[in-house]
Amino acid sequence: MKIALDAMGGDFGPPNLVAGAVMALREYPQIERLHLVGDARRIEAELKKHRCGDGRVEIVHATQMVEMSDGAVESVRHKKDSSVSRAVDLVKKGEAEAIVSAGHTGAAVAATTIKLRTLPGIDRPGIAAIIPSETNVFVLIDAGANSDARAEHLLQYGIMGSVYSRHVLGYGNPCVGLMSIGGEDVKGSDLTKEVFKMLKESQLNFRGNIEGHDLFAHPVEVVVCDGFVGNVILKTCEAVGDAIFKWLKHELTKNAKRMAGAYLARNAFRAIKKKVNYEEYGGSVLLGVNGICIIAHGTSTPLAIKNALRVAAESIEHEVNPHIIEEIRRYHETTAPLEPALR
Amino acid sequence: MKIALDAMGGDFGPPNLVAGAVMALREYPQIERLHLVGDARRIEAELKKHRCGDGRVEIVHATQMVEMSDGAVESVRHKKDSSVSRAVDLVKKGEAEAIVSAGHTGAAVAATTIKLRTLPGIDRPGIAAIIPSETNVFVLIDAGANSDARAEHLLQYGIMGSVYSRHVLGYGNPCVGLMSIGGEDVKGSDLTKEVFKMLKESQLNFRGNIEGHDLFAHPVEVVVCDGFVGNVILKTCEAVGDAIFKWLKHELTKNAKRMAGAYLARNAFRAIKKKVNYEEYGGSVLLGVNGICIIAHGTSTPLAIKNALRVAAESIEHEVNPHIIEEIRRYHETTAPLEPALR
Repeated sequence: MKIALDAMGGDFGPPNLVAGAVMALREYPQIERLHLVGDARRIEAELKKHRCGDGRVEIVHATQMVEMSDGAVESVRHKKDSSVSRAVDLVKKGEAEAIVSAGHTGAAVAATTIKLRTLPGIDRPGIAAIIPSETNVFVLIDAGANSDARAEHLLQYGIMGSVYSRHVLGYGNPCVGLMSIGGEDVKGSDLTKEVFKMLKESQLNFRGNIEGHDLFAHPVEVVVCDGFVGNVILKTCEAVGDAIFKWLKHELTKNAKRMAGAYLARNAFRAIKKKVNYEEYGGSVLLGVNGICIIAHGTSTPLAIKNALRVAAESIEHEVNPHIIEEIRRYHETTAPLEPALR
Repeated sequence: MKIALDAMGGDFGPPNLVAGAVMALREYPQIERLHLVGDARRIEAELKKHRCGDGRVEIVHATQMVEMSDGAVESVRHKKDSSVSRAVDLVKKGEAEAIVSAGHTGAAVAATTIKLRTLPGIDRPGIAAIIPSETNVFVLIDAGANSDARAEHLLQYGIMGSVYSRHVLGYGNPCVGLMSIGGEDVKGSDLTKEVFKMLKESQLNFRGNIEGHDLFAHPVEVVVCDGFVGNVILKTCEAVGDAIFKWLKHELTKNAKRMAGAYLARNAFRAIKKKVNYEEYGGSVLLGVNGICIIAHGTSTPLAIKNALRVAAESIEHEVNPHIIEEIRRYHETTAPLEPALR
């Protein structure tokens, strides 16, 4: 399989990205070609540091990069030679099967949507983030692609999240929850009330409204929300986890007795840390575009980038897109027939 | 001071609510009268259990209660003798200065807004939740009163949150952040982009967009968001905290060595647990209504109810509403003059 990595994005740029690429090349023989897209001179220098002469690497020079302060759509229009745009071009031309970017999320979404287009029946792509609960992992969709979503977008997220949960995570009949503010059917915003009705009429295994505490205490396999809310949930989960571990460390180092206790119990802390460590999950999949795009964390470490490349490889392998097209078609056949003009 | 407690609301009803009331009566001599509103027979039975013959208690019988499946506005219209409506009536008639409810949040907001009205210049009330970070506590507003907010509502939340932070929490010049999906000025939804401009033009100490990780790592004193997002943040914070402590407990009891470590370090865990325990904070204030309304957690323990009554007493003492009216007036004088017809 052939993957294109935007080697300029993310808070730390080429050093972390190239280091992650080198790790992935060593670990995943199924990668036949890895395009590293960006400033060729800097990428070469990083490869040299790692003494990497792997013949599967191809450097694709791009003269521009998207800054975090750039507008998403504007970046595609005005920075035609940006690393992320060039990486998407490789997918469009068939030279790569997937793109991985740790840069400006909006720019990656816009470049992919504009250049590759959405799948038939999908209006807007959504980011599917994988989050661990105590007993399972669940898909949170949309985790930040579409911050002004309409009801039909959220219905499509439910369908796409279900497909992903079934075909990639292996759940037989994934349970779908709608993120709301109150578990009862009548609760929610105007948007979620409308989506509630659509999900209920669909053939999805819809459990109804869920709230924050359901995420971990009674987890469903797919959590549906708009991109603003999903992004806030994702970042709040990380923030609370980080804050609690920081407070714990502070409290546990206050005196010798506590430090001795912490030393004895150190493997317990390690087990939890590993479980909540986003680096292990690597990246989130942008579902609904006619291609494969993996969105990695802006602060990605080399380990996180290696795992994002693993997620890209898995996505290529699982061929999720034909299943999404099929499920959307079935939805319109069984539940909401399309107007003849839209067929 | 005189307070009305909706004695029927919450997941556990009269037992927890009356137990909390009894605790508060013992601890707070400044409470001169405590109206317990609801099913008189059940309230009397609970008081008897606690051998409470406090002369400051007045039972106000109400024959109905709002169920969690009731619509918010409908509950005010159709259940005129509900405990929460009767409690608000006491404030309206001047027989109480504040109401505390652990019941259906939407019903408490609707009853208060319809019966007491909003303050001059405020379109929609917002719930101000108090959240601990490592170094301070901050106000999250709106935490769930208004799930379909417009830009001017969020501006008003910024002003009200600032007033509360200054006059109740004691911050000299509270810093205001707008919850968004990306720290840069250009990021956000259509709604937050509009609010960003309004907050920037205002005389508030506006720091700009903030994200999840800023909540605890670089906290501001006031976090502004719509009620849907705020409610999700609040519940997600609780859920992640609960989940991490549950996982920790599970890991720490896996073998004797870890258990010994946990025993030595037990005071560290207790310190954190106390810090993140919502029961200590008691309740959130509904800001922007012409009266005082405290929203307690649905799962409130007696300790949480006692602290919610403490928050009610503090709110009466601090007279926040005149300061809100003054700040809104100043905003319109200095930044956005009202049309003559609206003055």
